[in-house]
Amino acid sequence: MQWQTCLVVPIFLLYILSPTHWFYLYSSTKTQQKRKMAKSAGEENQQKAFGCAATDNSGILSPFNFSRRENGDDDVTLKILYCGVCHSDLHTLRNEWGFTFYPVVPGHEISGVATKVGKNVTKFNIGDRVGVGVLVGSCKTCECCEQDLENYCPRIIFTYNSYNPDGTKIMVRYVLRFPDNLPLDAGAPLLCAGITVYSPMKYYGMTEAGKHLGVAGLGGLGHIAVKIGKAFGLKVTVISSSPQKESEAINRLGADSFLVSNDPAKMKSAIGTMDYIIDTVSAVHPLLPLLSLLKVNGKLVTVGLPNKPLELPVFPLVMGRKLIGGSDVGGMKETQEMLDFCAKHNITADIELIRIEEINTAMERLAKSDVRYRFVIDVANSLSQ
Amino acid sequence: MQWQTCLVVPIFLLYILSPTHWFYLYSSTKTQQKRKMAKSAGEENQQKAFGCAATDNSGILSPFNFSRRENGDDDVTLKILYCGVCHSDLHTLRNEWGFTFYPVVPGHEISGVATKVGKNVTKFNIGDRVGVGVLVGSCKTCECCEQDLENYCPRIIFTYNSYNPDGTKIMVRYVLRFPDNLPLDAGAPLLCAGITVYSPMKYYGMTEAGKHLGVAGLGGLGHIAVKIGKAFGLKVTVISSSPQKESEAINRLGADSFLVSNDPAKMKSAIGTMDYIIDTVSAVHPLLPLLSLLKVNGKLVTVGLPNKPLELPVFPLVMGRKLIGGSDVGGMKETQEMLDFCAKHNITADIELIRIEEINTAMERLAKSDVRYRFVIDVANSLSQ
Repeated sequence: MQWQTCLVVPIFLLYILSPTHWFYLYSSTKTQQKRKMAKSAGEENQQKAFGCAATDNSGILSPFNFSRRENGDDDVTLKILYCGVCHSDLHTLRNEWGFTFYPVVPGHEISGVATKVGKNVTKFNIGDRVGVGVLVGSCKTCECCEQDLENYCPRIIFTYNSYNPDGTKIMVRYVLRFPDNLPLDAGAPLLCAGITVYSPMKYYGMTEAGKHLGVAGLGGLGHIAVKIGKAFGLKVTVISSSPQKESEAINRLGADSFLVSNDPAKMKSAIGTMDYIIDTVSAVHPLLPLLSLLKVNGKLVTVGLPNKPLELPVFPLVMGRKLIGGSDVGGMKETQEMLDFCAKHNITADIELIRIEEINTAMERLAKSDVRYRFVIDVANSLSQ
Repeated sequence: MQWQTCLVVPIFLLYILSPTHWFYLYSSTKTQQKRKMAKSAGEENQQKAFGCAATDNSGILSPFNFSRRENGDDDVTLKILYCGVCHSDLHTLRNEWGFTFYPVVPGHEISGVATKVGKNVTKFNIGDRVGVGVLVGSCKTCECCEQDLENYCPRIIFTYNSYNPDGTKIMVRYVLRFPDNLPLDAGAPLLCAGITVYSPMKYYGMTEAGKHLGVAGLGGLGHIAVKIGKAFGLKVTVISSSPQKESEAINRLGADSFLVSNDPAKMKSAIGTMDYIIDTVSAVHPLLPLLSLLKVNGKLVTVGLPNKPLELPVFPLVMGRKLIGGSDVGGMKETQEMLDFCAKHNITADIELIRIEEINTAMERLAKSDVRYRFVIDVANSLSQ
């Protein structure tokens, strides 16, 4: 297998061109072994696929043809209908984290309908509403995988920009079921943005009704954190540098209050009032003002990924027994739990539905935080029409 | 009350000159109220006291006379026999944190014997072996105080370099009992160094037998963290920049292994092997190498107080769901629990006993980490002889 092939194989589709181009997921070790032995035969039987790829750090997405294998006995194939656009996509396209492999086809908030199900697959039926999030593979045997924390497996295979050692590790384990009342368009962003804020709230114990949650940054992640926080019964305050977002934060998203982060007087008046903060800001920013907002024993969870280290003031951490924790999406079991939770509480993302032809403009707007609050590509109604 | 007086009043004795000079603690609101009403009378009835004070940021300690009030009905008076020397003392003397009030008489690892007990005090009897740690007052009514977390009370009164609004807030609540088999000399450092490492291990859940604890920095705090970690049944690795400490870390203190922090090959081989790290380093230092040593879900607790912010790499925090937590000594209930735990497990500090006349030399050696592992002033056998 050549290096170029290795890089392209695990890269998933941002969308498919027509119903004859399928996105599919492998499902069992048995099939993997078969495929290892019969790789040549498998390669002969590949399907054409189509995506939008960036080929350099300009980040411009252009049409890109590649191929995927045919559906096997243990595979699920899905027709992609929607795909959310995450800030991580932008970081990756522009190589802002320094580890992008080009060409890269971004997209990891994928929803659609199962169109083929291998004969050994019992979990899904044709026609099921399904989703694929940030990861499509892991070792299944390590301590993390055994604890349903595939997202922290050292051999994780991300949905794109990830290296798949033998091209056979993509399994049905990583396909999620959309509850009946969860729409595929506004529900798609939950697969990354939703689980990214839900998982740390559960893990770090930030769900006690009546407690006060600060949500720093009101973007794709932040606006879902507000909704999930409210569903847990928390008092939610949005902390944002954009005063113009106050009305919609409160009236549209349901936040209890709004704090302008660059207003010293307001920030001062809120010192020591919060139990938890979810920090969704992906740019380099000071932590001290956020730490100051926390009570004793307060918890700040950072889920943004600035491309440079932040400055950590130790005194407020020590003197108030505060913690700064990280968290990265969630395991498959918890992601399903989150989808079910959101369906139960009627939580979806607020989205701007776009056609695939608009993706580069959307990326430019995303870079300026000019989106309310998540772009979702309407794949079915884009180029195929 | 003049400012100068306010500053001096809450400053405690590093040692007492003779048995006729007492260190004492107030004990009840009733007495406080009486004292408010009868302040003039109280001031007339003060005892002479003697300590060693720094008067400027040269940090040089010199003899210093001041006074304390007479023992009241709700007070406990103790004769100081030993006092440990903490790195915080050095930071404060030299104003390295920027908030030292001069003159300052340091010392917050104080052990001795109760010599007077007010008629309303039932907790202690004359002759009891007692100690005083980092704090001598708090509001008693806030959420922290109600949860036995007086150490995080916003109105905390530290044993020195702290402002006591009315001079009456020093209470018996802050006196600790030394278990029978806990020596007053080698036990004294537990009152700060011991509780500083014990409390976060309990709070952050770092006590699961068989787990792997890293102890960064082998000084006053670190060497006790090794002993407490072993008492909890942990595998303990010392992480230190001083290779010459390896033998004593393992053979004398009981660590399981030793990692030289500036040996890239050894550090690399230990990546992802630790469940917890207690970081006792009080100088500015990189966190990335320590975070790299942690497994997924690993916890790094910082208890040192560098005078500048540290650099926080966000990626390892997020990608491994790691946390960095702070912790500052412990509440009175937990400090007593820690003393009892140490007594049960025969844990004391390894000390170098010095006479008070040697304090400035000791401070110079402490600044160079040239101490195995805690200086303790032998008050009774110093100037009084």
